[in-house]
Amino acid sequence: MAPALSPRPLSSVLLVSLIPIASWFVVRPLLDPSPPLPALYVSFGFSIFAFLAALFLIPAVGPTFIKANLKGRDLLKVYSDPIPESQGLVCASIYILLLILFIPFPFSTAVASLASAGGKSDRGLPDGASASLHHELSVYLSSLLSLLIATMLGFLDDVFDIRWRHKVPIPLIASIPLLMVYYAEGGNTHVVIPLPLRGIFGVLVNLGPLYYLYMSLLSTFATNSINILAGINGSEVSQALIIALSVILNDLLYLPWPIDFRIPLHLLGNRAELEVGGTWHAGMAYGSSELVGRHLFSLYFMLPLVGVCLGFLYHNWYPARAFPGDTLCYVTGMAFSVVGIQAHFSKTLLLFFLPQIFNFVLSCPQLFGVVPCPRHRVPRFDPETNLLHPSKTLFIKPPSKLASLILHTFATFRLTELTIHPTTGNILEATNLTILNLFLLRLGSMNEKRLVQALICTQIAGSILAFVVRYGLAGLVYDGDRR
Amino acid sequence: MAPALSPRPLSSVLLVSLIPIASWFVVRPLLDPSPPLPALYVSFGFSIFAFLAALFLIPAVGPTFIKANLKGRDLLKVYSDPIPESQGLVCASIYILLLILFIPFPFSTAVASLASAGGKSDRGLPDGASASLHHELSVYLSSLLSLLIATMLGFLDDVFDIRWRHKVPIPLIASIPLLMVYYAEGGNTHVVIPLPLRGIFGVLVNLGPLYYLYMSLLSTFATNSINILAGINGSEVSQALIIALSVILNDLLYLPWPIDFRIPLHLLGNRAELEVGGTWHAGMAYGSSELVGRHLFSLYFMLPLVGVCLGFLYHNWYPARAFPGDTLCYVTGMAFSVVGIQAHFSKTLLLFFLPQIFNFVLSCPQLFGVVPCPRHRVPRFDPETNLLHPSKTLFIKPPSKLASLILHTFATFRLTELTIHPTTGNILEATNLTILNLFLLRLGSMNEKRLVQALICTQIAGSILAFVVRYGLAGLVYDGDRR
Repeated sequence: MAPALSPRPLSSVLLVSLIPIASWFVVRPLLDPSPPLPALYVSFGFSIFAFLAALFLIPAVGPTFIKANLKGRDLLKVYSDPIPESQGLVCASIYILLLILFIPFPFSTAVASLASAGGKSDRGLPDGASASLHHELSVYLSSLLSLLIATMLGFLDDVFDIRWRHKVPIPLIASIPLLMVYYAEGGNTHVVIPLPLRGIFGVLVNLGPLYYLYMSLLSTFATNSINILAGINGSEVSQALIIALSVILNDLLYLPWPIDFRIPLHLLGNRAELEVGGTWHAGMAYGSSELVGRHLFSLYFMLPLVGVCLGFLYHNWYPARAFPGDTLCYVTGMAFSVVGIQAHFSKTLLLFFLPQIFNFVLSCPQLFGVVPCPRHRVPRFDPETNLLHPSKTLFIKPPSKLASLILHTFATFRLTELTIHPTTGNILEATNLTILNLFLLRLGSMNEKRLVQALICTQIAGSILAFVVRYGLAGLVYDGDRR
Repeated sequence: MAPALSPRPLSSVLLVSLIPIASWFVVRPLLDPSPPLPALYVSFGFSIFAFLAALFLIPAVGPTFIKANLKGRDLLKVYSDPIPESQGLVCASIYILLLILFIPFPFSTAVASLASAGGKSDRGLPDGASASLHHELSVYLSSLLSLLIATMLGFLDDVFDIRWRHKVPIPLIASIPLLMVYYAEGGNTHVVIPLPLRGIFGVLVNLGPLYYLYMSLLSTFATNSINILAGINGSEVSQALIIALSVILNDLLYLPWPIDFRIPLHLLGNRAELEVGGTWHAGMAYGSSELVGRHLFSLYFMLPLVGVCLGFLYHNWYPARAFPGDTLCYVTGMAFSVVGIQAHFSKTLLLFFLPQIFNFVLSCPQLFGVVPCPRHRVPRFDPETNLLHPSKTLFIKPPSKLASLILHTFATFRLTELTIHPTTGNILEATNLTILNLFLLRLGSMNEKRLVQALICTQIAGSILAFVVRYGLAGLVYDGDRR
């Protein structure tokens, strides 16, 4: 099986063709006439570089990681070749380095004036926006600090192999820079109350310190919820990828779309060109430059994340040549909470985590120790058939009343399958309470590739549902007042 | 020799007595009347916490590091017990976490207004200073990013054991956030020309991109110059400690000293208190609030660095119970270049690196491969006498003409000792070109503790010389025009 583990082939044609495209996007804002939203062009160009860097660096550094004992064996395969672990570190390094190199483009007054000099006035952002550049830069830098701390802690987790019960609160530490700068900048701690409750609480409620608690819990949830939906090739990174794409789609709804194409009439002998369109203020932003700014901020973080995730997915796809380690979950989880918090759409963000929320609720009895939790809850691999089956937790002593009640309830909804002692009626075994085991239970045993595809489909379905809830049903409980 | 390696005893009396003192300094600015320079009180309190945290955490985490294979044996001892390596990571984590928690104190408008509400107007800083809070916060955050990247890279260096030739440019990466934010904020790239050259260049010269090159080279130099003056117990951290103390002493010269003590006359029956003094604008700041702000910024970074270095030195002192790893050199080197760059005193800073500059120049022939460079250049340990002797590099093939010339020149100045072939006259051996070997050569063989004491004395002497040059001789080539 050795050939299975040689690195996936890389096409140098891809490299040669994508580098000029990426470079064009990076330099485009500096060319006259400057496009609307110039920094977004750069961000897109950087995202292509992020993709290429992840694609080519991960196989290059693999042997170094194996030599430094950062390796693992794939539990769901017949071979036991060492596979480089913690490759999320490579992704995170590329991601953060590009985000740092990106700083001058949106935040430099020099670049801003250069870009606006030859630009048009209808860029969707008022010209006075440069006054708040300092503030936005602080927010951006605090986000980078949080991402970097998350990376660091994720890598330490990989090196020191921290037990999961101890590592649940670790993302709290990474959220500290966010909270500190949010406080120092006098950040808003008001929340808009849903319509039915306004009789009691009013339109706005100041949560004060509770808002900070909410922010740090959001980062803890985003990180850990991806981390516990893991264990099969491609699972962590595909979740991150689809959530990031969903956030991007949501952000695009708020941008002033420049439908500004020209029909080249001069080719037909006419001297004047016909301009169609101009800047169309997207329905969701209602012309609010603050909302546009927030969603641009979110795009700056999400676009390169998609880049590195795509590049990494190529090597992490079944059968995996590289493992993400905890580092990838930490950095992607923190990236999502950063944009949710800083761009003020944390409720929408949580909607994109529907499969993770479901998996978390399903896992609760095991996470909180009511039902025994083995070290690995990944599905069981049958080397004969190459199929995965639901893995089980064994009851060495009879389950508590609470555990029996929960498991029987779950079994009623076919969320788990129990093995009952024929005479005492005690539960002897239960399938582990994860969404992956649930898929195998409901859809039948399948191979690892099919299982990760099922996970991806669920994640996409969750995002579609999220958009329906956010833009279809939210109007029932919220008016247009978004702060 | 086992008892030699049990952790050094820690006094809980110290903990119990220092925690209230540190806490008082942290809450003091919130009490009425607010002191002048309130954030400096907090910084000092945090530095005591930094000291305590390093003192107590380093022995606590040692076994975890050893278990994760982050351990080394002390090459200059008779025993071979594993000693935890990379403890600079612990120092750096404490240091950076405290710097992050410190953010609201100097940069929050809420805290600033709270502190100034009951405060006096002669705080040395104009009241309008809060307008530039955003700008200062960005600079502070970019410095934290650079420190964090330096920590990360230092730790990666420890884990992956990067060869030194490859790791020389690594600090360049850590300096990128500094450069990006410096550029985005439209940082000054002018330098003041010394008086004798003003006829040619004028008073100010705009270095432009060269200034950015200078900044990144400064961080590379600061990091690597400490890293190559290493190898004996306490050497790295004591260098960092003395440089940090020198920077603090220099900063204190620019503060508006509040000689504002009250003679408690009411104890003598008088109702009014007699206030002596007020705010004395230190001679060096000439009342410039910008200069005061810069040196406060430097103090915020240097005070907690002294705290962690002191705490670590206790465990790293001969015979060492903990090793710094490359992480400590990276983070301290970056901290020095951060303050040198951001607070605009890089030339003064370089003066505090005189022993490092000397060691670097001395090492050049080996660093650049003219003279063979063994993997370790630390002095040779004689287990019989417990003394250190100069270590030597062997010439397997005869030295090049250039190497012979350099070594003979060095030998003339008694910087190295050569072993010459009696008949051919070829150089067979030379003592390794480091300041530590030079000490042993000139002062005779001594034990490791004496050698590190000699290094500390040299560093202190270097700093005294630096102050003489800076405040005595600099007037000959510079006027008061400092920008």
